[in-house]
Amino acid sequence: MASVFGNALKVSIFGQSHSPAVGVVIDGLPAGFKPDFEALKRFMLRRAPGRSRHATARSEADEPEILSGIVNGATCGAPLAAVIRNTDARPRDYEGVRDIPRPSHADFAAQAKFHGAQDVSGGGHFSGRLTAPLCFAGGLCLQLLEAEGIVIGAHIASIGNASDRPFNPLGEDTETLRRLAESDFPVLDSARGEKMQSVIDEARDAGDSVGGVIECIVMGLPAGVGSPMFDGLENRLAAAVFAVPAVKGIEFGSGFAGARLRGSENNDAFYTDGCVVRTETNNHGGILGGISSGMPILFRVAVKPTPSIALPQRSVRLSDKTNVQLTVKGRHDPCIVPRAVPAIEAAAALALYDALLSNEATV
Amino acid sequence: MASVFGNALKVSIFGQSHSPAVGVVIDGLPAGFKPDFEALKRFMLRRAPGRSRHATARSEADEPEILSGIVNGATCGAPLAAVIRNTDARPRDYEGVRDIPRPSHADFAAQAKFHGAQDVSGGGHFSGRLTAPLCFAGGLCLQLLEAEGIVIGAHIASIGNASDRPFNPLGEDTETLRRLAESDFPVLDSARGEKMQSVIDEARDAGDSVGGVIECIVMGLPAGVGSPMFDGLENRLAAAVFAVPAVKGIEFGSGFAGARLRGSENNDAFYTDGCVVRTETNNHGGILGGISSGMPILFRVAVKPTPSIALPQRSVRLSDKTNVQLTVKGRHDPCIVPRAVPAIEAAAALALYDALLSNEATV
Amino acid sequence: MASVFGNALKVSIFGQSHSPAVGVVIDGLPAGFKPDFEALKRFMLRRAPGRSRHATARSEADEPEILSGIVNGATCGAPLAAVIRNTDARPRDYEGVRDIPRPSHADFAAQAKFHGAQDVSGGGHFSGRLTAPLCFAGGLCLQLLEAEGIVIGAHIASIGNASDRPFNPLGEDTETLRRLAESDFPVLDSARGEKMQSVIDEARDAGDSVGGVIECIVMGLPAGVGSPMFDGLENRLAAAVFAVPAVKGIEFGSGFAGARLRGSENNDAFYTDGCVVRTETNNHGGILGGISSGMPILFRVAVKPTPSIALPQRSVRLSDKTNVQLTVKGRHDPCIVPRAVPAIEAAAALALYDALLSNEATV
Amino acid sequence: MASVFGNALKVSIFGQSHSPAVGVVIDGLPAGFKPDFEALKRFMLRRAPGRSRHATARSEADEPEILSGIVNGATCGAPLAAVIRNTDARPRDYEGVRDIPRPSHADFAAQAKFHGAQDVSGGGHFSGRLTAPLCFAGGLCLQLLEAEGIVIGAHIASIGNASDRPFNPLGEDTETLRRLAESDFPVLDSARGEKMQSVIDEARDAGDSVGGVIECIVMGLPAGVGSPMFDGLENRLAAAVFAVPAVKGIEFGSGFAGARLRGSENNDAFYTDGCVVRTETNNHGGILGGISSGMPILFRVAVKPTPSIALPQRSVRLSDKTNVQLTVKGRHDPCIVPRAVPAIEAAAALALYDALLSNEATV
Repeated sequence: MASVFGNALKVSIFGQSHSPAVGVVIDGLPAGFKPDFEALKRFMLRRAPGRSRHATARSEADEPEILSGIVNGATCGAPLAAVIRNTDARPRDYEGVRDIPRPSHADFAAQAKFHGAQDVSGGGHFSGRLTAPLCFAGGLCLQLLEAEGIVIGAHIASIGNASDRPFNPLGEDTETLRRLAESDFPVLDSARGEKMQSVIDEARDAGDSVGGVIECIVMGLPAGVGSPMFDGLENRLAAAVFAVPAVKGIEFGSGFAGARLRGSENNDAFYTDGCVVRTETNNHGGILGGISSGMPILFRVAVKPTPSIALPQRSVRLSDKTNVQLTVKGRHDPCIVPRAVPAIEAAAALALYDALLSNEATV
Repeated sequence: MASVFGNALKVSIFGQSHSPAVGVVIDGLPAGFKPDFEALKRFMLRRAPGRSRHATARSEADEPEILSGIVNGATCGAPLAAVIRNTDARPRDYEGVRDIPRPSHADFAAQAKFHGAQDVSGGGHFSGRLTAPLCFAGGLCLQLLEAEGIVIGAHIASIGNASDRPFNPLGEDTETLRRLAESDFPVLDSARGEKMQSVIDEARDAGDSVGGVIECIVMGLPAGVGSPMFDGLENRLAAAVFAVPAVKGIEFGSGFAGARLRGSENNDAFYTDGCVVRTETNNHGGILGGISSGMPILFRVAVKPTPSIALPQRSVRLSDKTNVQLTVKGRHDPCIVPRAVPAIEAAAALALYDALLSNEATV
Repeated sequence: MASVFGNALKVSIFGQSHSPAVGVVIDGLPAGFKPDFEALKRFMLRRAPGRSRHATARSEADEPEILSGIVNGATCGAPLAAVIRNTDARPRDYEGVRDIPRPSHADFAAQAKFHGAQDVSGGGHFSGRLTAPLCFAGGLCLQLLEAEGIVIGAHIASIGNASDRPFNPLGEDTETLRRLAESDFPVLDSARGEKMQSVIDEARDAGDSVGGVIECIVMGLPAGVGSPMFDGLENRLAAAVFAVPAVKGIEFGSGFAGARLRGSENNDAFYTDGCVVRTETNNHGGILGGISSGMPILFRVAVKPTPSIALPQRSVRLSDKTNVQLTVKGRHDPCIVPRAVPAIEAAAALALYDALLSNEATV
Repeated sequence: MASVFGNALKVSIFGQSHSPAVGVVIDGLPAGFKPDFEALKRFMLRRAPGRSRHATARSEADEPEILSGIVNGATCGAPLAAVIRNTDARPRDYEGVRDIPRPSHADFAAQAKFHGAQDVSGGGHFSGRLTAPLCFAGGLCLQLLEAEGIVIGAHIASIGNASDRPFNPLGEDTETLRRLAESDFPVLDSARGEKMQSVIDEARDAGDSVGGVIECIVMGLPAGVGSPMFDGLENRLAAAVFAVPAVKGIEFGSGFAGARLRGSENNDAFYTDGCVVRTETNNHGGILGGISSGMPILFRVAVKPTPSIALPQRSVRLSDKTNVQLTVKGRHDPCIVPRAVPAIEAAAALALYDALLSNEATV
C-alpha cells in the first residue's frame, strides 16, 4: 500500500498538507525503549518550515502528540501512534490547481488517478508536510540504531552547480556528523556552503527554484545485514528514500561514476590488520550483494528543484482542455534540499532499522 | 523476504548458480492468459550466456520447464511455477572464495551474514544466473503489459565513457523498440555501438572489465497508475531493479542532471491539442508524485564493472587474517551490461504490472 | 505485524485501553466514497460501553475524529485516519495486575513477552476497547459492501446454555437483518432472548460471567470471491475474527457438527431454476475451496466468558512466586457477547471487503 | 496471495493435482540448518496416498527433489525449493466436472472465479495433493521447532460419532506423541481407534464418506510468543490450518464448549511451585491475548466428510442450466481425516515457527 513501509517494523503514515493532522503509526518497535523526546524534537525541527532563511513562511508548531504505545516514557509493545496538528492550514490557496495542474507537481497525475476526489490543498498526501511523520518515525529509528552503535548523517552535497566536498568514503568522524545534525544548512565545508546558499538566494530572487544532491553516510552498521535479490539494502533504502517528495535518483558508492570505470578501478581491495577486514576504497558504498560489508554505507540522492516557482508557466485548463498561462500562488521553498536532509536520514533509518530487525539468523 | 516481490502479484525466485535448478513461482497472474512461449524463449535468450562475443563461455539451455499453473496453454489461476536446470554447473571452480573473498563480490558480506553456510559456487544466490527466472517472470509481465498497449524497451546508454544517443524523452517509436529487442547489442546508434563494443574488447584484452548505463523507456502506461509515498512507481521500480546484480544507481527523468537545474528549466510545461494533455519536455520521467503522468517513463540504471577480473587483486585470507594476492578464476563476462538489458526490462515489467494490478480504483 | 490487517486494504489499529486515544489508519479505500457518518456512529454505538443493562459502567463518547483522508465528506485516496479519545480513563484501577496476573486474561502472557514494559491499565492493547477502531474501519467496509449489494448481519446464537434459533442457512430477509442491527440485544426470537438475558443477569448476580456464541451471515456476496490455500475466505475471516478479544473458535456452515456426518448428509446438492444455480442446503457455509459459492456465508464464533469476575480466584504473585488469592477490581461486563456482535460484523466486513478488492480477475 | 504464507518465513506453495509437479519455495529459513531428510520422508509418508486401508488407490512416490537452498546437506540462506512429481496423474477422470460441478467440491466456486480457465483435473489447485508440499515445508519447521524443544502432535479425536479420548490439556508425554507420529491411524486409545476405523469402513461400504475432528497439541512453546490483535497465535494458526482442504472449523482450548460456561468455570487459575508458573486447567488452550502462556497449545479442527462419494447426487449442468444426477468417478478416500493429521501438524508448525522467528523482542 501507498503509505505502509517495512517488514518487521510496519510504519503507516497518514495525513494531507491541510487535513486536521498528519501522523504515523509504528508497529513492531521493541518494548521498553525510552525515546529521547527532546532529541526527537530537535531532529524534527530540522525539517520544520519557518526555520531557515530559505524556507517557506508557513509556521507549524510540529509538536507531535503521542496517542498510544508509550507508558511511563517507554514503548509498551503496542503500536506507537503520533499526530501532528496542521495548525496553520490555508486550504483556500489551492482551489485552482484541481483544474489547472501545476507543472511537475503531482496535481495532474493525482487527477488522473482519483478523478477529482484527491485533496488538492497544499499538495494533499503528496505534500512535503508528510515528511514530518516520516521524520518522527525515522527519528525514533535513528535513536534505536544509535543504541546499536550505528550513526546516520547527511549533508547537502550540491545545490545547482555549487558543491560541498564529499564524505570521506572510508568514514567520517562522529564529531563531524554531530555538527552536521546541529546545522541549519548542513555542509562539510562552510565556505562552499556560503556559495550554495547564494545559489538559492539567486534562484529565489529570480522567482525561481533550484535542486540539489544530498549525500548520506551510515557508520557502524556491522557486516552481514541485508539480503540478496529484492530485499537487498539498496532495494530497501531506495524504496524508502523515494517516499521523500522530489527525490528523482539514488546511487550507492561510486554509482553512476562507477559505471564509467573498469573493474580494476572500481573494485575495492580487501585488507586486514590481522583483526578487522576492511576495504581500501569504498566504491561499493558499503553494500555487496544487497548485504552490508561493514564499510560505511554511502549513497547520494538527487532532489529536483521545487516545482512551485513564481515565474509564469504553461499549463492546461482540464475542464475545457485549453492551454493557459499559470502563476503558482502559495508559500514555497526556493530550494527544499536543506529541509530534505533530515527526511533522507529518517528514510534511511527506517529502512536500516527494519532490515536489522528482520535480519535472519543462522541456526 | 529476500526473494519475494510484489503486492497483487507475488513473485518468488529461487536457485543458486550451481544448484540443481533456478526457478520462479508467480502467484496472482490473471487466469486465462495464454503466454506466447516462443516469444518468452526469445526474450530469455537475450540474457542467456554464450550468446554474444562478450559473454561468458558457460552455455545453458535455459529451457524453462513449467511445473504448474498452465492448463491447455493458458494460466489457470493457480501459481505458475517454472524451473530452469543448471546443466553446466562446475561447482569446483569456486572452492577458494569462501576463505578469500573476491573484491567487490558478495562473498565477504555473505560470509558475514551466513557464517560459512552460504553457497559459494558461482556466487550462489547472488549470481547473475538468478536473472534467468527474473526474465521468465518479467517476460510474462511484458506480454501482459503489451496486451494493455504498454511497451517496455531498453538500450545500452553507455559502456565506460562511450555513449549511445539517449531515448527521445517524449517517446520512441515501436519499430525502434522492436529492433532493440532483437539485437545482441541493443543500441540506438550502431556506429556508437561499435565504439562501445571496442571498449569492452579492450577491457577484456587487458584482463579487466567495464561498467555501463542502461536506459529504459516505458511507452503507453496511462496516467494515474501508482501511489504517493512508499508505493510510488519510483519506489517500486527501484525496489525491483536493484535485484539485478551489479546495479548501483537509478535515476528517473532528468535525475541527477535535473538536480543541477532551476525549476524553470526542469519543470515540464503541460499543453494540449484540445484532446490529450501532454508535457512539452519530460524531465519528470513520466512520474509525478509516484504516479504515472501518461508521458513515457524514463529511467537510467548504473551497472558497475564486473567485479571478476583476470588481473591480480588484493584480498584477505579470512581463516588466518592475512593479506594475500588473489587471481579470480572461473568464466566471467568482461561487461555484463548487454546481458543486463533484458533483466532491467523484466524487473520494470514486474514492478509495473504489479502496480497496474493493485492500482486502487475510485468508487 | 500485530495490528495491521489486509492485502489490498491496509488497516492499522492502535491504542490501549487507557492511552490518550485509540484509533485506526485505513489505507487503500477507494477515493470518492462518501461515508454515511451518522450510520457509522449508530453502528459504533452498538459496541459502546454504558449502553445496555449488562455492560460496564464506563462511559465513553466514542466520537471518532477524522484526522485525514476525507475531503468534502468523501474519501480522497489518502489514508483515512480516525482517533477516538479515551475520556474516561482510570489507569489507577489496574496497578496490581502487573505482579498478580488475572486468570485467563492476557496479563501473564504479556508479561512473558514484554517483561514489564506492557501497558497493564485496562488490559492495554489487549482491551476490548480496541474494538472501537475495529468497528470504525469495519463499519466503513460494511457501507462499501452494502453499496455492492452485500449485507452482513449477526445475532447472539447462545448465552451459556440458552440459545436463539439459528439463521436460515439459505438466507435471511433484509428486514430481519436490519432489525437485528437496531437491537440492543440482537436475537431472532425475542422470547429466547429474554431467557438469554436472564442467564446473564444470574451470572452477574453471582459475581460471575458467562460466554456465548455469535452467528454471522453474509448475504449477496457473489460466487467467485476468494482464493484456495492460505487466502481462502475461511482463512481470512478467521484471521480477522480472532482479533476480537475472547474469541476462541470459529466454524463455517455445518462446522463441527458436519464433522460427525457422512458425505451424503453433509454435501449440498446443486439445483437450478434454469437461471441461477444454488444449493439445496448450505452445510458448506457459502465457501467451497476458499471461494464464495454465491450462497450466504455462515459462520459461528465462540466467545469465552469474560475472564474478569468478582469472585475470588487463585493466582500467583510473580515478584516472589507465591500462590495468592485475587479479587479482580475494575468495571467489567458480565457477558461481552452482545457488545462483541458488531465487532464480529466489523471483522467480517474488513476481511470480505479486502477479499473483494484483491480478487484477481481473469484476462 | 492465495499460496504464500508467513511473515518472517515466506512459504510459497504451487502445483495442481495433475500438473507435472507440486512444490514449495521456502524463504527465510535460518542458514546452517541440517534437515533430517529421512525423518522428513517418514513424516511426508504419513499423508501419502496408498498407505492405509482407507486411502485412495492412487500411488505416488512423493519423493521431493531439492532444487535449491541446500548445500552439503545444510540450508545456505537462499530459498529452499522442492518439487514432487505427479507421476500417477490421470487427467481424463475429471473432464466432466467443469460442466457438472460436484456437490461440496470447489468446482462451482472455481468456475465462478476463473470462468473455465481453472484446472479441473483432480481438483487442480484445490486438491489434497497440495498438502504434500505443505507437509514438506511444515515437516522442516517441525524439526526446527523440535531443536527449540517444541513438539507438535495430533490425533484423530473423532470419526463421525466415534471418539478417541482427548489429549490431557495439561500435557502429553513425548512418548505418546512419538507413538502417534508413527501410527497409520493415530489415536490415543486403540480400542476406540478400532471403532473409528469401523465407522470409515461402513461409510465406504455404503459408497459414502465420513468426517471427523483432529486434535492438536503443542508442547514446549515458551510463554510470550505471539501478538495481540491480527497476529495472535489463534489468528495465525487458523489462517494456516484452513489451507488444509476440507477444514471447516477450529477451536482453541475449551472453544465452543467454553462458550457455554461461566467465567468461574472456564477461567484457568494460576499456581506456582515457587519456580514455574502454570495454570491448573487449560481451557485457554495455551493462548491468552494472542500470546502463548507457556501451557500446551491445544486446538481442534473440524474436517468435513470427503465430498466425493460413490452415491448418486443432484447437480446442475452449467452449459444448459438443467438439473442432472451426477455419479462422481475417480479415486477418493472415504475419510481424509487420517491423512489430514500430518497436514494439520505441518500447518501448525509453519504458523508457530514463523511466529517464533518474527517474535519482537524488548530492547
